[in-house]
Amino acid sequence: MLFKLDERLEKDSVFVCKIGISQIRLSKDARYPWLLLIPEINGLSELDDLSWQQQLDIMQTSNQLSACLKSLYAPHKLNVAALGNIVKQLHIHHVARFEYDEAWPGPVWGKGEALRYSNEALAEQLQQLRKALDDTSVSA
Amino acid sequence: MLFKLDERLEKDSVFVCKIGISQIRLSKDARYPWLLLIPEINGLSELDDLSWQQQLDIMQTSNQLSACLKSLYAPHKLNVAALGNIVKQLHIHHVARFEYDEAWPGPVWGKGEALRYSNEALAEQLQQLRKALDDTSVSA
Repeated sequence: MLFKLDERLEKDSVFVCKIGISQIRLSKDARYPWLLLIPEINGLSELDDLSWQQQLDIMQTSNQLSACLKSLYAPHKLNVAALGNIVKQLHIHHVARFEYDEAWPGPVWGKGEALRYSNEALAEQLQQLRKALDDTSVSA
Repeated sequence: MLFKLDERLEKDSVFVCKIGISQIRLSKDARYPWLLLIPEINGLSELDDLSWQQQLDIMQTSNQLSACLKSLYAPHKLNVAALGNIVKQLHIHHVARFEYDEAWPGPVWGKGEALRYSNEALAEQLQQLRKALDDTSVSA
């Protein structure tokens, strides 16, 4: 059965690439470098809905996203979180945080209004991310 | 070298038990069933500061905490998150969320004031948690 991405995730983020069993997406909120890791399996809502093998796969991918965000943006902190109170479909946030960002030191969710990327900025961001993810890829 | 727990984590939570390489603590905020998973290794702040073997260990423990929270409280959603914007020492929140809780559907961090447990309620909660964690333990 084909994977069906949640409509809100689809609207609020843009496809970056596929790694392992997961789809990587970039949040359209330009206030924060913000990646989503979404295992392409229907019906998941919690991390422990994944099998152990699937967990190993997404942990490796999560490490890759962290390395990518560190290398591109040198953030003060990473926030890695599976919340899903609004969108149930399992998605794991990876957000690069800075001591001068709008929500610091609070969480980013539900804070203020998203800032949209320009088309040019979004295209550039995607290109940078794909290159960095390629550079930080590890053999499985 | 002995593990040194961050002072704020020590103040805001209470020791439940040790599982694998991690110390499990209960947040003193009675508004939410809220566990902390803290690897007992000095100098960590990000998930990917852990070695792969350590990541496997904490993933298994995280699954155990999720199973425990589900079995005890039947939450509408779990929130599993490594943020650390305020306390840098790596700690992974596991919060049982309900559609009627104070912060729903927003995140729990930085929302309102913590509600303290009575001594009796805290003792009972700890006893329940230790029993449930024992019941959900898996052989490594």
